[in-house]
Amino acid sequence: MRIAQIAPLFESVPPARYGGTERVVHWLTEELVAMGHEVTLFATGDSRTSAKLVPVRATAERFQRNFERNNAPYARMIELVARQADDFDVLHCHIDFHPFSVFSRLRTPFLTTLHGRLDQDWVPSIYRLFPEVPLVSISDSQRRPEPGLGWAATILHGMPERILTPVPAHQDYFAFLGRISPEKGIEPAIRIAAACGVKLKVAAKIGEEDAPYHEEVVAPLLQGDAVEFIGEIDDGQKPALLSGAKALLFPIDWPEPFGLVMIEAMACGCPVIAFGRGSVPEVIEDGVTGFIVDNVAGAVAACARLGEIDRAGVRARFEQRWTARRMARDYVALYERLVAARTPGSRRDFAPVGR
Amino acid sequence: MRIAQIAPLFESVPPARYGGTERVVHWLTEELVAMGHEVTLFATGDSRTSAKLVPVRATAERFQRNFERNNAPYARMIELVARQADDFDVLHCHIDFHPFSVFSRLRTPFLTTLHGRLDQDWVPSIYRLFPEVPLVSISDSQRRPEPGLGWAATILHGMPERILTPVPAHQDYFAFLGRISPEKGIEPAIRIAAACGVKLKVAAKIGEEDAPYHEEVVAPLLQGDAVEFIGEIDDGQKPALLSGAKALLFPIDWPEPFGLVMIEAMACGCPVIAFGRGSVPEVIEDGVTGFIVDNVAGAVAACARLGEIDRAGVRARFEQRWTARRMARDYVALYERLVAARTPGSRRDFAPVGR
Repeated sequence: MRIAQIAPLFESVPPARYGGTERVVHWLTEELVAMGHEVTLFATGDSRTSAKLVPVRATAERFQRNFERNNAPYARMIELVARQADDFDVLHCHIDFHPFSVFSRLRTPFLTTLHGRLDQDWVPSIYRLFPEVPLVSISDSQRRPEPGLGWAATILHGMPERILTPVPAHQDYFAFLGRISPEKGIEPAIRIAAACGVKLKVAAKIGEEDAPYHEEVVAPLLQGDAVEFIGEIDDGQKPALLSGAKALLFPIDWPEPFGLVMIEAMACGCPVIAFGRGSVPEVIEDGVTGFIVDNVAGAVAACARLGEIDRAGVRARFEQRWTARRMARDYVALYERLVAARTPGSRRDFAPVGR
Repeated sequence: MRIAQIAPLFESVPPARYGGTERVVHWLTEELVAMGHEVTLFATGDSRTSAKLVPVRATAERFQRNFERNNAPYARMIELVARQADDFDVLHCHIDFHPFSVFSRLRTPFLTTLHGRLDQDWVPSIYRLFPEVPLVSISDSQRRPEPGLGWAATILHGMPERILTPVPAHQDYFAFLGRISPEKGIEPAIRIAAACGVKLKVAAKIGEEDAPYHEEVVAPLLQGDAVEFIGEIDDGQKPALLSGAKALLFPIDWPEPFGLVMIEAMACGCPVIAFGRGSVPEVIEDGVTGFIVDNVAGAVAACARLGEIDRAGVRARFEQRWTARRMARDYVALYERLVAARTPGSRRDFAPVGR
């Protein structure tokens, strides 16, 4: 198939470091190319891809306090895609609602994977205008605030089978991996490790917005030997961290739409002890790849049961359920369904619609 | 005519206080209604208008550190307008490039008044994709960085004749009105007043982004009796400030696209001493409504010549050149030109274009 992948423009594809959406777009694009599809990636010029790259802006540029500056590359991308839409069988967007007005009036079918949470107050004002736009949720739980939208499928993320693999290690600490923020649960993670008398290694980014929280709340908790703060790490450092961890602690305090770090842990055979919010019950198999708990006490109890988990079995489940190839196959099946449903003449005209 | 006015959504129309674009949209809308046109205003729900209001979001909300939150109301507005575009003879946009992809493919002609500067690095990346979109510049100088765009007219701003009028006063100070920022020239204004031995009254907003500049650079200059800082003022306070001022000081350090404060001063009969950048030579008539100078020394020399300016003559020039009625007539003439040029079948199709 001739597939356009339309990526966010605040990060490159793949992202230099932290950036879940851009990593998934990268993995999906690489798999689709490997499967023989003709893929064009609309992304920043500093992206790396096996697909044909259309560089929409020269380099990734973070969010700025300037509405036009943030938007100009997105408006440019949408117009560039629209002008060559007839060259594609399907347009796969990862930029939320931005292209809906234009793309819903094109001949070429398009779909949008939503990568974020939908429980925010502004969401209905825009998404409910477009109940016919095909959407992909990255977990069933992600849909909950907006069940009436045009949900076409839930496609759980996957990652390349060989990026992260287990390395020999003695497990003598817990790991926390991701971002320092209240919703990612760094505080309960520290409390769980302390209650278990196990050291916690924290490999996490401190974002600009989370810096005050880190300084006021988290930094004081990092004193002493019980917690080791490593900072942001890249994929090369993850196998050692995760292979050496008794478990990844994922005591989230928000409706996590997916949570890539859980499958990263599984890739290294590392079980996950997670609070059962958001996507967690769809990603973790309780007692097989980790434990789903309600609170700190539940997590401490689960830690005592980690011996029941077979780390080789965790890796095996990763290979069965969480590879990028499985994800790409799921997407191709959906692309084919959308193309088949697009009968000639079904294109929405530009005359008044939806009133 | 059936006219849609499409306003920014970070401020209401008119704005609560500072906000040049929203004030102009308000004045234009009111004049068009007064002239008998059927006007629909797409704006925030807390806007006040004689036109039919389509409230796109409930209330104005300032720029947030959230890309989707900032954009959702704009995406919503563009879709709402597109769905009823056939009900209008012309769509008049004040939201930069945002609607270009959608509106350039509608049957109804549209135009965009650009309210900002065009000398920024991201401008070519988006505007040059749309050389056929009719644009209105608010001064000829505004066009300079991008002469190749689809410029349809320059229409200088105007304001309602009776909003600001001269009040009896003895003139014994200079006025600075607007915003504390390096580009608006508060520092040279203070130096000019000091060199003339005349008190300076500063009625200005301190924006969030300009707060550090104010604290570090400007606040120390406001000590003592030579400068009186009044803060942000509304239209009710402007006649007294401007009628009592020997001159408005406008020593800008940027390519001001228009500069409403100059015509506010003229409305009160107050001459303007301005640095000759941006729109200034198009707005100020040297020796008639003020003096155009190059630097602080030039401004000080001009102050000595203020006696040559007839304040009643300044007001008369305002009434001749700078009313909202004149501005609205200019726009209606352009609307009629665009409607006449739109021959049936000239609508751009959604097939590949512009390649």
